[in-house]
Amino acid sequence: MTADPVLSFLEQDRAAALERLMALLRCPSVSTDPAYAQGMGAARELLMARLARAGFGHVREISAGGHPAIYGEWCGQPGRPTFLVYGHYDVQPPDPIADWSSPPFEPRIVDGRIRARGVSDDKAPLSIAIEAMAGFLHVEGRLPVNVKLLLEGEEECGSATLGQICERHRDLLAADAVISADGARWRTDLCTVNVGSRGNAALEFSLTTAARDLHSGRFGGATVNALHAMARLLASLHEADGRVAVEDFYDDARLPEAADLAMLARIPFDESGFFREFSGRPHGEPGYGTLARLWLRPTLEMNGMWGGYTGAGAKTIVPHRAEAKLTMRLADGQDPARVVAAVRRHLKNHCPAGAQLDFRDTSPGSRAYTVPENHPLLLAVERTLADVTGAQPVRVRIGATLPLSDIVSTRLGLDTVMFSFSTADEKFHAPDEFFRLASFDKGLRAWVLLLRRLGLQTPYDYARFQHRPERPSA
Amino acid sequence: MTADPVLSFLEQDRAAALERLMALLRCPSVSTDPAYAQGMGAARELLMARLARAGFGHVREISAGGHPAIYGEWCGQPGRPTFLVYGHYDVQPPDPIADWSSPPFEPRIVDGRIRARGVSDDKAPLSIAIEAMAGFLHVEGRLPVNVKLLLEGEEECGSATLGQICERHRDLLAADAVISADGARWRTDLCTVNVGSRGNAALEFSLTTAARDLHSGRFGGATVNALHAMARLLASLHEADGRVAVEDFYDDARLPEAADLAMLARIPFDESGFFREFSGRPHGEPGYGTLARLWLRPTLEMNGMWGGYTGAGAKTIVPHRAEAKLTMRLADGQDPARVVAAVRRHLKNHCPAGAQLDFRDTSPGSRAYTVPENHPLLLAVERTLADVTGAQPVRVRIGATLPLSDIVSTRLGLDTVMFSFSTADEKFHAPDEFFRLASFDKGLRAWVLLLRRLGLQTPYDYARFQHRPERPSA
Repeated sequence: MTADPVLSFLEQDRAAALERLMALLRCPSVSTDPAYAQGMGAARELLMARLARAGFGHVREISAGGHPAIYGEWCGQPGRPTFLVYGHYDVQPPDPIADWSSPPFEPRIVDGRIRARGVSDDKAPLSIAIEAMAGFLHVEGRLPVNVKLLLEGEEECGSATLGQICERHRDLLAADAVISADGARWRTDLCTVNVGSRGNAALEFSLTTAARDLHSGRFGGATVNALHAMARLLASLHEADGRVAVEDFYDDARLPEAADLAMLARIPFDESGFFREFSGRPHGEPGYGTLARLWLRPTLEMNGMWGGYTGAGAKTIVPHRAEAKLTMRLADGQDPARVVAAVRRHLKNHCPAGAQLDFRDTSPGSRAYTVPENHPLLLAVERTLADVTGAQPVRVRIGATLPLSDIVSTRLGLDTVMFSFSTADEKFHAPDEFFRLASFDKGLRAWVLLLRRLGLQTPYDYARFQHRPERPSA
Repeated sequence: MTADPVLSFLEQDRAAALERLMALLRCPSVSTDPAYAQGMGAARELLMARLARAGFGHVREISAGGHPAIYGEWCGQPGRPTFLVYGHYDVQPPDPIADWSSPPFEPRIVDGRIRARGVSDDKAPLSIAIEAMAGFLHVEGRLPVNVKLLLEGEEECGSATLGQICERHRDLLAADAVISADGARWRTDLCTVNVGSRGNAALEFSLTTAARDLHSGRFGGATVNALHAMARLLASLHEADGRVAVEDFYDDARLPEAADLAMLARIPFDESGFFREFSGRPHGEPGYGTLARLWLRPTLEMNGMWGGYTGAGAKTIVPHRAEAKLTMRLADGQDPARVVAAVRRHLKNHCPAGAQLDFRDTSPGSRAYTVPENHPLLLAVERTLADVTGAQPVRVRIGATLPLSDIVSTRLGLDTVMFSFSTADEKFHAPDEFFRLASFDKGLRAWVLLLRRLGLQTPYDYARFQHRPERPSA
């Protein structure tokens, strides 16, 4: 049916490629729990052997003190652009294991789906990329472009050392752009390409009003209750209508332009179905619709708050301490440190008399990311998806945060386009994670076509989009 | 030194009386934990044997399905008043056991103090009452008045069945007034008599905004966050100045009169020392001082609130549920059910859109209690304390709740005066609970003198203070 020799080979080789994916899925490569160190090592060995056998050079581990990443390259096309292809071999913990229909590290194919921990996030998507490139090297002895592979081992535990890995290996990782095999598609019913993500920042603090909990009969009504103070303080963070009430919070956030909002308006979106699925209702910054609130505007969310007695029955105390965890999602233009500073200022200014705040250290956060709208990799991805699916892909964003995009932009000066074939409904991070077999076939075809299309480009196409890497803020 | 033959006998018998107290302290009579059932039984057997040996009649257990109370009577003075003498033989759990200087159920005498779980609350105070009466029966063959002893076994777990015990045994427990051997004195540096206590009521509820926790990137900013809604709702319960903002909350609370406030003003009270001890600061209903806020005015306190992620690190969720526990302390005139209804109305009226409230059942609560100011038992107690201490006792109240006073008032139509010799600093409910040996001697003397003084009264003195028992509200 297809005249492409690489695709013909991949069709013949499909059973073997799936068996290699199954072997990778059998490695319990949980990065967050040291008990799985052996599974992490097994996954690395298997992938490095595969890359070497496929014809990649310089296959090795690169690390900055955490779980190593895997590196490999094929750079036999001088004059053609170079792409850093990203994926991650680590997976989420399988808990709660009892909720799985089959053991999480014994992959099963059921009803056209592969079920296993990590299959959708990110082992099948990264295997698709590897198999497609291996197909080129097997059939044609070369790739259409230069490729550097970077397979991270800490994506599921916060990419703690990815920034340092990029710093240490800046020359090794030099490229024209990043193609990420990670980053799930939004929906199964719409062909989309993701052009941006929100940043994030976090804040944790405790509020203390006395040296100890007090008996509510012997002290209640005459002194400060930490929970009253915390409730008042947290309530001050938002207006009743949903707007964040923190001074300066929105200052640097790029205001959506008419074109941005028009783009959102064109996206088919069943808003009532969206809220019905989780029994919620629309609520947020006034003046914006749901997609703008999720994709273009920053938000401040309390993730946890607690204090006093939380067990069964009553305990008649005046609690002396309360705790809160907040995270923000950031829009283009916002700096995580500046936003955190604004929220801290607000909390200090609104802290009720008699209460003391103590802030705890949190991770430095990431900025929002947007692919330049005429970026040559983005245009190539869109054309490829149109060829594979027969429909022009719709540009969308995600409200979540992808530290990778911010890290490679900041440390390596590179733009990232996501080219993954998982979809957001595939229960990643949950029991019975799965991946659609149909996506495996579609993904192989798409990667082959994308690589061929990128082979028609030159490094010159990318020159005007590369920016000087910044040193990260301390 | 004293001419009173009963007191002379008690002085000779002191070592034996202390040994009997030690034996009682060795019984681990923790009522809240079924693992201590044997300790509860041992304490009952020991006390019943002691009462029978001392000369009390009809010694038996009376119960209404929970831990039994112990009953015993000596009613050989027709024409004299009858007093229900109350104490409780159950104790708080000893946890955290590691924080004790010696094992909680192996009593030690150190530096003039007995250290053991339950010694101050309430085994020494009730032993004093028993030893004093046993002294009368031993030396004189009779008591100056009629006495019915009621030793409760559920005081430390909420007096769940005390009301039913009173209902079932209304005739058996008929008396002219209640003398409570429970109810700690306020301070060691001031001779006080407690003339009242606040009531209480409780409320627990959850607030739900969605069917499950949501990813803060994929949903944050566009839907209702349960913690935002809960913080706003809880913050609405109070004004910034400390006044309870619930409509109708203060309606039935008797307003302190000039005489009440003048009484408070006369009490020696080191307010800055009070707050310094727990590093707190004054805060409460405007227009009242600390003692009025603690003793005469109602309060609404959050005892616990929680929701979302409370573990280590960040979890980027939009929580779908939050929980809160509230208790109120009530002033004279307030009905617990009406106050709870007012708070529930407020919560429903102020519940943010998109949030649903679910209330959980809580105990029905107790009303505040005040001894009538010319009550003959109160006057006798004051005269006795003046004789024993050489100082006119100061009338004070407590901000805490004594369900006993409300229960016997409601079920038996009786007033209660507290005549305990523990003090509030004796670490009851905490590790290293202790009782002062000096209080043991002072207490014996006071009980003997009180009983002699009461013997000069007649039932007629009490007739105008007895009220018709009410049926409790459903």
